[in-house]
Amino acid sequence: MGTSAYQRLEEVFRRVAVLSDAGSILHWDMSTMMPPGGAAGRAEQLAALKVICHEALTDPRVGELLEEAEADHALGPWQAANRAEMRHRWLHATAVESGLVEAFSKATSACEMIWREARPAADFAAVAPALGRVLSLAREFAEAKAERLGCSPYDALLDSYEPGGRAETIDPLFESLAAFLPDFLARVLERQAQAPAPVAPEGPFPVEAQRRLGLRLMAAVGFDFDEGRLDVSLHPFCGGAVGDVRITTRYDEDDFTKALMAVLHETGHALYEQGLPEDWRYQPVGQARAMSLHESQSLIIEMQACRSREFLEFAAPLIADAFAGEGPAWTPANLHRLYTRVQPGPIRVDADEVTYPAHVILRYRLEKAMIAGEMEVDDLPAAWNAGIDELLGLTPADDGEGCLQDIHWFDGEWGYFPTYTLGAMTAAQLFEAALGADSGILPGIARGDFAALAAWLRENVHGLASRLSTPDLITQATGRPLDGEAFERRLESRYLGQEAEGLVSAGRTS
Amino acid sequence: MGTSAYQRLEEVFRRVAVLSDAGSILHWDMSTMMPPGGAAGRAEQLAALKVICHEALTDPRVGELLEEAEADHALGPWQAANRAEMRHRWLHATAVESGLVEAFSKATSACEMIWREARPAADFAAVAPALGRVLSLAREFAEAKAERLGCSPYDALLDSYEPGGRAETIDPLFESLAAFLPDFLARVLERQAQAPAPVAPEGPFPVEAQRRLGLRLMAAVGFDFDEGRLDVSLHPFCGGAVGDVRITTRYDEDDFTKALMAVLHETGHALYEQGLPEDWRYQPVGQARAMSLHESQSLIIEMQACRSREFLEFAAPLIADAFAGEGPAWTPANLHRLYTRVQPGPIRVDADEVTYPAHVILRYRLEKAMIAGEMEVDDLPAAWNAGIDELLGLTPADDGEGCLQDIHWFDGEWGYFPTYTLGAMTAAQLFEAALGADSGILPGIARGDFAALAAWLRENVHGLASRLSTPDLITQATGRPLDGEAFERRLESRYLGQEAEGLVSAGRTS
Repeated sequence: MGTSAYQRLEEVFRRVAVLSDAGSILHWDMSTMMPPGGAAGRAEQLAALKVICHEALTDPRVGELLEEAEADHALGPWQAANRAEMRHRWLHATAVESGLVEAFSKATSACEMIWREARPAADFAAVAPALGRVLSLAREFAEAKAERLGCSPYDALLDSYEPGGRAETIDPLFESLAAFLPDFLARVLERQAQAPAPVAPEGPFPVEAQRRLGLRLMAAVGFDFDEGRLDVSLHPFCGGAVGDVRITTRYDEDDFTKALMAVLHETGHALYEQGLPEDWRYQPVGQARAMSLHESQSLIIEMQACRSREFLEFAAPLIADAFAGEGPAWTPANLHRLYTRVQPGPIRVDADEVTYPAHVILRYRLEKAMIAGEMEVDDLPAAWNAGIDELLGLTPADDGEGCLQDIHWFDGEWGYFPTYTLGAMTAAQLFEAALGADSGILPGIARGDFAALAAWLRENVHGLASRLSTPDLITQATGRPLDGEAFERRLESRYLGQEAEGLVSAGRTS
Repeated sequence: MGTSAYQRLEEVFRRVAVLSDAGSILHWDMSTMMPPGGAAGRAEQLAALKVICHEALTDPRVGELLEEAEADHALGPWQAANRAEMRHRWLHATAVESGLVEAFSKATSACEMIWREARPAADFAAVAPALGRVLSLAREFAEAKAERLGCSPYDALLDSYEPGGRAETIDPLFESLAAFLPDFLARVLERQAQAPAPVAPEGPFPVEAQRRLGLRLMAAVGFDFDEGRLDVSLHPFCGGAVGDVRITTRYDEDDFTKALMAVLHETGHALYEQGLPEDWRYQPVGQARAMSLHESQSLIIEMQACRSREFLEFAAPLIADAFAGEGPAWTPANLHRLYTRVQPGPIRVDADEVTYPAHVILRYRLEKAMIAGEMEVDDLPAAWNAGIDELLGLTPADDGEGCLQDIHWFDGEWGYFPTYTLGAMTAAQLFEAALGADSGILPGIARGDFAALAAWLRENVHGLASRLSTPDLITQATGRPLDGEAFERRLESRYLGQEAEGLVSAGRTS
């Protein structure tokens, strides 16, 4: 017997995955190591790899092999799921003709360049024409994909980041949260005003001490340093390749708190990558399931576990020790107050856990309307300001801290935003289920021992890779489809309930 | 008018060059940054890139395009030279059928693995069968290439590293040097015995101080840090990509002298890469000409310039300052004695400037005989020991410091060795010509200002890339073909003449 169609497909997708890994390491290098003179060459290298992968996926033979493989009834469940993922990737790769792909890529590059100047100048008019061109091509792009995938244009864009994700599922989740937030936020702020204000630890905090502390906490969380690294980049990210997962952070010698939480956030992403099943590492079914699930893994570590009072009981002495800190700023209670401080503001990336979803819901509403043709670029500043006022009761000083603040639309990443808050909701629901399933998890976190949590995540999330759809994975892990209830419960407990009182049930380290 | 055959060839070779650059950065990362878990994946990434480049070069369309392009009489001199380089690469790529390429690659991987154990155990018998298999395949490989290139099998191997290089040119150069060396060495050793022994500076020498000193001297030599980096790896090398040239060294806190000279050596390689002509960076004609010329550039900086008394007058205070060194060990005269110490020994990579060629000549004689079938693997230990005794008057304690010491043969790099000593001869001849052409070069070096030397090298070597053959380049730059005279003159002056007396003609820094 010769090589089956399915096996030949595995070879094609394996090569693509290997080359994607190569590209991912080159991208990491670009962000962490590359001298400025390498930029033009690196862009060429990455583009060449992308073209080769695209050529491999869109080769007419792949469509034929898929049809042949789909008649193969001898495949096991992982193989069958892999075949479905192959079809899905092939649909995306072949949905848009290359002229439009290139036009969109050029329009977004041009727009991003203008945006880099327009944002600090808070000059929306300067970038509006370029953004208009991007939007118009994004609509064309979305329509082409929609036709192929059999969904709405917005859903077709969302589907690249969140396979199977649909606005009709997201709308009720987000609208319910939007209804919950304003009143909840008011209560949190009122209560916070009555409690002592957090004391800021005084620096400077040397980079090397921050780095060592980050490495110490990464090790506690379970990062495998034989298969990964920690480095520095302008924006923290998690990248790398099979067996080689690389996270980054950015240090500020006046404030260690952000870099440290960024390390823990990216460590959550890294645990997902490091926990993907060995046997499927170079196949589509072996990849992380969706952006929302990826974000849920970073937020379980950062928000659910590491901003908890339990974890900070463990971490506070290590943090104080790292910087030879003494006094009231370095207690678990004070660090907890710092790390759960709620402060509505105009900037998404500076937002706390409570107000962050409002930023996302606003962007989700707006991008959906723009892709649907219900709104144009010129309407954006006014709609933005009205929306942020409705959700958070504030008005940006200018468009620089309003609709110009994020790169996503200018860079062509339409349909990405909702995955942040879907991730936060998923994190809360998974974490609640994990705590319910293993009563050892929380006491472990309080001792800086994440083994029980990691084991649950590996069994219920990481080890499944893309074997199940996102909804099926969540239902299997938590007993029900994704809803906002665990997230709201967690917010209530942390910001209005027990955790806010500093009452923790788990053991403390001495 | 459509795209010409020549232009289409430029596109093919451009993609190959861009992907080779990607591979080169991945290789650098593997040697400097990669955690151990990344090894298997990285091997896959590098292999995939190699396969893609090989597929691109051996596509039957390339042969057709070459024939078509060779009938094109409208090309300028750089284009015509580029076309000839394309043909040369295509000949190499298509000379050996893929089954043999794969068998050779597998045999060398297997042999290298065994060698890694056999070398420290000094157990030649353990690796002999695997090396026999490599040799037998190397002969087949060489014969296939020889038929295609119209030269002897050994020349066909040499030609991969040294395009156009032929044993009939090398033989008289090496035999003349082999005749010169023994008596010369005896005179040097005699004279050295009469002079004061060098005083070893006392450490420890912290890595960070060594690194900063290396960066300082790299800057003096003219390394462009906007287009490159310095890092650490087990074996020093120069790699990277267009606009992004990366060198490495290895630090020993007990001895700064080796790491520092390795930095300067690799800086010489880097200047060549950084000086290649902008317009041809992704074409064959735009690449460095040959391994011997590359080595000549590293040796001009390391051996000719930086081990000179003139340079050490400049560098000694910086070196002393880097390690807060005081006393007789830190004078220019003492550092010069250290850096020109001659000491025959069995190990090539530890050899000084005078005895190094003996190691190379031995290997050259042996590998030529083995490829020609005049010698078998089992004859190697005895032939090695006889040869090193003849050339240097010493006997290795065992095969670990004899014929097992270098990776090259076990790894399949037959035909590489002669380029080291060709490089040393070329370095001396080019440096002599440079000093003759610009009387400002030596005083510049004595001030730590390499601008005049760099300008001469850029005009006569770097900027020409592969526009001329190696012999034509050397003749154009020095007025005559490569001979060993400048090298012998340089050795005589340094080890028996003026420089050995500490008499320098150029200005000194205070």
